Amino acid sequence: MESSFLVGLIGAGVGPSLSPALHMREAAEHGLSYVYKTIDITALGVPAEGVGDLLRDARRLGFDALNITHPCKELVIEHLDQLDDTAARMGAVNTVVFGEDGAVGYNTDTTGFAHALRTGMPDAPRGTVVQLGAGGAGSAVAHALLRQGAGRLVVADMDLDRAQARVEDLRRHHPESTVEASDVEKLAALLPDADGLVNCTPVGMADHPGTPLDTSLLHPDLWVADIVYRPLDTALLQAAREAGCRTLHGGHMAVYQAVDALRLITGIEPDATRMLAHLRELAAAG
Amino acid sequence: MESSFLVGLIGAGVGPSLSPALHMREAAEHGLSYVYKTIDITALGVPAEGVGDLLRDARRLGFDALNITHPCKELVIEHLDQLDDTAARMGAVNTVVFGEDGAVGYNTDTTGFAHALRTGMPDAPRGTVVQLGAGGAGSAVAHALLRQGAGRLVVADMDLDRAQARVEDLRRHHPESTVEASDVEKLAALLPDADGLVNCTPVGMADHPGTPLDTSLLHPDLWVADIVYRPLDTALLQAAREAGCRTLHGGHMAVYQAVDALRLITGIEPDATRMLAHLRELAAAG
Repeated sequence: MESSFLVGLIGAGVGPSLSPALHMREAAEHGLSYVYKTIDITALGVPAEGVGDLLRDARRLGFDALNITHPCKELVIEHLDQLDDTAARMGAVNTVVFGEDGAVGYNTDTTGFAHALRTGMPDAPRGTVVQLGAGGAGSAVAHALLRQGAGRLVVADMDLDRAQARVEDLRRHHPESTVEASDVEKLAALLPDADGLVNCTPVGMADHPGTPLDTSLLHPDLWVADIVYRPLDTALLQAAREAGCRTLHGGHMAVYQAVDALRLITGIEPDATRMLAHLRELAAAG
Repeated sequence: MESSFLVGLIGAGVGPSLSPALHMREAAEHGLSYVYKTIDITALGVPAEGVGDLLRDARRLGFDALNITHPCKELVIEHLDQLDDTAARMGAVNTVVFGEDGAVGYNTDTTGFAHALRTGMPDAPRGTVVQLGAGGAGSAVAHALLRQGAGRLVVADMDLDRAQARVEDLRRHHPESTVEASDVEKLAALLPDADGLVNCTPVGMADHPGTPLDTSLLHPDLWVADIVYRPLDTALLQAAREAGCRTLHGGHMAVYQAVDALRLITGIEPDATRMLAHLRELAAAG
């Protein structure tokens, strides 16, 4: 019998996701029968709380694994049998694998960003890193930055309360690091001494054009990473290159998140370079 | 985006089915990402009447099609949006395709047996054919025989009432043919004048050893087809060869049923010869 895998992506508005194409082409390179389906709760008229029922139905019908995205990453947890350490620390799951131990939750958003940074900018200084955006993606990035030894992490958000809540949570899990919340107005004071900047807001996406901060604050001693990947080359990254910054586009995190999920689901070692080239091609195609 | 297909088989005890391997290997030969999952209502603890819920769930989760087997082939019909003519005439569906017209039901058991007979024994005389077994598989075979121009069809069953009910139904749809029910005791009188014999009972399967009739009744002017395919070479076919009969093993119907389903689901033209070789290999492996 051929090895076959059935995987789904549960979330709101997931129809245009690039994950099906990314997973299926790489799995095919390894000779696997692999089908990846989007399960769009918006199109189905299912509330976010319905993720438990979808998870149960998917398991009964033979799905081997699920990716989980907004707005179900926290809600899915109560329906799982086990959580790995990273997902437990984050309180968010983006990958569920069904196996002999039941439904096990992982978070490859955070391992994905960690891998992206380690491979894409291995020697970038981690002294002080400023992160814009304290939402779910921001949480994944912050955990990854702290695990990669960021000495001081400043989380800035338009919503200072959200930034402060995020920071309190991060401090609990990373007592060895300095983690601070900041108003976006204070960026002018913070950035001159920062080593790195990561955009975790949606600003820069095709339907959120613009830059998430005043680009005159960028300087050549700053590295800049974006997690937006549609488009790959955001206005922020363009401005950063002009300012002489080293940059890392959002495709790296998107691909390593998929690499880590594909490895967990199948046991194969995906070729991240090939998947990054494929993502570039998909992103260029629209 | 690669073409991908997700298909399931709903029925009782379908775990050991050869359909996943047959479908997936042939689809892979055509470069398709194709995953075929068994959905065993016995293992799930779902009653046969639960087929409607499973159908709905499968559609919501992105299945492209389903095969349906015992005991759900009739029960599934009320949950479909359309039936093709053959399935409507039979009152039984073994293939459901989800598309723009909703859930459409087909019966490739009957088209499969018709193809098997046409390709495997194209010039076999169809004057008088005796069929053993009046159950669901028997219905598919009888409809196929009558559509292939059998002049006189005799349906024999241990349960004469069942044979008579089947015959009444067949007469309604094939008024041009002579269709009779028979007691199994009358086979001795029927077979000397018969051109063909088809076994549609489970006798001959690994867990129903033996032959479905007294093999001394076989004679060289009779062709013999079996629909049992595990094993491919049943005791009936062995005795028929010894008696000088032309024979057709059950793998032909099993393969053409899958060929027709795969064509309906994907639009490709499957290679029946290759699939028959694969079935032979799978059957030999156990």
